[in-house]
Amino acid sequence: MTTTADPRALEHPARDRIRLEDVLHALADAVRLRIVRDLAGEGAELSCSDFDLPVTKSTTTHHFRVLRESGVVRQAYRGTAKLNTLRRDDLDALFPGLLDAVLAASAAQDGRGGAAV
Amino acid sequence: MTTTADPRALEHPARDRIRLEDVLHALADAVRLRIVRDLAGEGAELSCSDFDLPVTKSTTTHHFRVLRESGVVRQAYRGTAKLNTLRRDDLDALFPGLLDAVLAASAAQDGRGGAAV
Repeated sequence: MTTTADPRALEHPARDRIRLEDVLHALADAVRLRIVRDLAGEGAELSCSDFDLPVTKSTTTHHFRVLRESGVVRQAYRGTAKLNTLRRDDLDALFPGLLDAVLAASAAQDGRGGAAV
Repeated sequence: MTTTADPRALEHPARDRIRLEDVLHALADAVRLRIVRDLAGEGAELSCSDFDLPVTKSTTTHHFRVLRESGVVRQAYRGTAKLNTLRRDDLDALFPGLLDAVLAASAAQDGRGGAAV
């Protein structure tokens, strides 16, 4: 884990601590898949409140924590907002083709009318 | 679900009922990843007892059930043994590149000394 003196810093696994099983678990949820797809599409930082998700705020916070702790997203405070970015470089380096395959599979599933969110 | 009059038949989702989230969940476990890698490597049927897994028999049964119910493997009785095959055709048709990316990622992780099983 990254350590720092900043009490507001959020813990993230270093690249070499990211585990495939944790990444797959993080992606194995319709809401989290939607978050990841939005981040991949925007290619930029989005705050948690930029997402219009059909779950409560505390559940949203939980989903982002799962994504952060697994190494899928990076979160940083800016003022009172948490900004999220996809760790695409880390994931592509560790697991080539995996993120793109999941994003494509998720889009294809939605295209078949299988959208759960 | 497939329905049949055979009381020993095991339930499997039809191809169009396989959900990405369920497949990712099934793969998000070191033991199940190892089973899937073994099945992919053999490209053939293996009975549950062909696997030398570091878990109890009941846990092994649980893992195979998760894999079957998510659509990752097909199981059929032959005598008293359950034979397992990877549903590669179904997974490749639904989620192109996903299974291969996961298999490669799992092998790469083990190559980095990250084997958990």
